[in-house]
Amino acid sequence: VSRLPALPDLILVNGREAQAVSPLDRGIHFGDGLFETIAFLGGRLRFLDLHLERLVAGCERLAINLDGLESLRGEAERAASGAREGVVKVILTRGEAVARGYAPSGRETATRIVLRSPCILAEPAPAARVGVAELRLGESAALAGLKHLNRLEQVLGQRERTARGLDELVHFSSSGRLVSGSLSNVFLVAYGRLRTPQLDLCGVSGIMRSVVLREARRAGLAAEECELTQADLDSAEEIFVTNARIGVWPVAALDARRLDIGPVTQRVQALLEPLLSMTRDDAGHA
Amino acid sequence: VSRLPALPDLILVNGREAQAVSPLDRGIHFGDGLFETIAFLGGRLRFLDLHLERLVAGCERLAINLDGLESLRGEAERAASGAREGVVKVILTRGEAVARGYAPSGRETATRIVLRSPCILAEPAPAARVGVAELRLGESAALAGLKHLNRLEQVLGQRERTARGLDELVHFSSSGRLVSGSLSNVFLVAYGRLRTPQLDLCGVSGIMRSVVLREARRAGLAAEECELTQADLDSAEEIFVTNARIGVWPVAALDARRLDIGPVTQRVQALLEPLLSMTRDDAGHA
Repeated sequence: VSRLPALPDLILVNGREAQAVSPLDRGIHFGDGLFETIAFLGGRLRFLDLHLERLVAGCERLAINLDGLESLRGEAERAASGAREGVVKVILTRGEAVARGYAPSGRETATRIVLRSPCILAEPAPAARVGVAELRLGESAALAGLKHLNRLEQVLGQRERTARGLDELVHFSSSGRLVSGSLSNVFLVAYGRLRTPQLDLCGVSGIMRSVVLREARRAGLAAEECELTQADLDSAEEIFVTNARIGVWPVAALDARRLDIGPVTQRVQALLEPLLSMTRDDAGHA
Repeated sequence: VSRLPALPDLILVNGREAQAVSPLDRGIHFGDGLFETIAFLGGRLRFLDLHLERLVAGCERLAINLDGLESLRGEAERAASGAREGVVKVILTRGEAVARGYAPSGRETATRIVLRSPCILAEPAPAARVGVAELRLGESAALAGLKHLNRLEQVLGQRERTARGLDELVHFSSSGRLVSGSLSNVFLVAYGRLRTPQLDLCGVSGIMRSVVLREARRAGLAAEECELTQADLDSAEEIFVTNARIGVWPVAALDARRLDIGPVTQRVQALLEPLLSMTRDDAGHA
């Protein structure tokens, strides 16, 4: 029997411990909503302000009414306070349908779902075995960058990853641009410079990605968002992937090619380490 | 106050009248599932077998365990039997999560949600005012053709349609192919031949689209699925859109251009009419 990541031990729906979402919720019908996966340590949510800022920006792009932002913050904090270490997933849907059909009425009230899963944050092996995914991601500028609930591509990506026995996959888009991992963002190192795909056509604009870009630049490391292709991936001197739970995850193998955990990756890991282990203050304001 | 399509008056979750779906359902988390919108008239579900065949084919592509197909058929029939005319929407998700994360475990049990909405099937105006959507659709071969639950593009499309005061929009893909309407498939007539976009990169393979192709060919009308572009749309002699509720909907205006309800469209309407109004036998076997 395979070891599967544990299910949540606490679920709040609109602030109440509950096991029920309305079957009219537009989250179920259309994936009409957004989510955040926020790591916590010692009861503190990492980069909470950055996560909530992204959620608000997503609501603005999708015209979701988020009146309950302060309630949501409190619910996430309540969830994190009850366990030592893990992730709090926050799902925000446009809410229950007011009318039948795709078109939002504008009068929906967002549904908040907060799920706490205790887990060890430094769970992965020290370096990742990664493959290039068969699955290419659709380019939809209107949705690019958003952490929305339309995640079937990631489901299929992670199914492919599991079948191939790898730690993660990196995806290209339908037109051949490098985008991201299935559940991570990707950084390449070329001539000592950090490069990560721009996310104007697809992909999720990860919080850990933005923290890496910010901290690298603060430390004087060249770091750019740009259009990247297969050739850039093939010629990268170092590769690492990032997400909220794992932080910075060096890539030790890309399909048949071996990679070292090089000096730039180590530098980024060292820059991030104090922020990732911080428990007393909100690392988002570090 | 605008007149909004009525909400369902009957909801069955896994066969029981219920107002609750688990907050762990992968339908909510990822849009990990499929749906069908089936019209009914006089208690009979139109093209039920075709809808269920598409659902099964979708389950195979997404590796969703659909053990409850016969239950689902019975639930849809039960819903349709309780009203004169309307639509039954069937949502099938991969089910409640067995583990955290995108990867399916393979051990989930599908969730069935059946919703009945009484409505008049011949509701739309006799011909549609249509515009070309700003929103372009992502090309994701792995998901192309499926009526899956990742429908944020359609939500944004119908928001755009509403804002522009039109009956429907037609969408191009990211690479410039004609795909479909927001909630319909699209047919063009050129030199007396029917043409509809092939759906190998995006779009939903609609049941009414397949019925139109089948009936046109049976009647000796040339009808092809092919790659179509802006130029094909601009030069079309006639245009109509199709979906399960509306049937065949002639397009009277495409942005500033006026169109007549031409002879091929009228022929297709006449071919479909007996199937759409049939109440005694399953039109899927006509």
